[in-house]
Amino acid sequence: MSDFDQHQQELRRGTVVLACLLTLHTAEYGYQLLEDLQRAGIDVDGNTLYPLLRRLEKQGLLRSDWNTDDARPRKYYATTPAGQAAAVALAAEWNRLNGSLQALIDEGNH
Amino acid sequence: MSDFDQHQQELRRGTVVLACLLTLHTAEYGYQLLEDLQRAGIDVDGNTLYPLLRRLEKQGLLRSDWNTDDARPRKYYATTPAGQAAAVALAAEWNRLNGSLQALIDEGNH
Repeated sequence: MSDFDQHQQELRRGTVVLACLLTLHTAEYGYQLLEDLQRAGIDVDGNTLYPLLRRLEKQGLLRSDWNTDDARPRKYYATTPAGQAAAVALAAEWNRLNGSLQALIDEGNH
Repeated sequence: MSDFDQHQQELRRGTVVLACLLTLHTAEYGYQLLEDLQRAGIDVDGNTLYPLLRRLEKQGLLRSDWNTDDARPRKYYATTPAGQAAAVALAAEWNRLNGSLQALIDEGNH
């Protein structure tokens, strides 16, 4: 991975948790979430996403339920109330950081 | 560090490189940059910033010059042309990510 790719990766990494907590407002199984995130422009692969979902569940920010109605049983993840609160706080932090960076970007254009 | 602090930290971490490259459009010494970043709302401490400056210099994104005119010689860092190009690309990626996240945040509010 080039130096630039690594910096870009670091910029993206922090967004994945917030994007998961926001998207799983409605319960989804892992692969469905992966597709939704990619469609939304959040680049993440299964090797990163699936362990992250288990970690967020352990932290109480997501819960999971097996749906056995489908032909193939699937584990559905959904954001808990604690996860919703975390999403609100992280979104506020994102907006604060965005304000800071936009000001620096604008300065650079003068 | 709590789970939430860690997620917040991850969100912030990626912004530091971009903020440095943008700010060092004009040469500054380490502590001056640290103060400027904190004033701009980019939370970073010296233990993170100083090694990062050396890393970015090694990557050719920053250059450094000793200024010996001051009473105390200081190492000034400035963004190189390669660093400027990286800043433009990272700013574009930030804006793309911001668009993606804002859409998810807005959806969550409906």
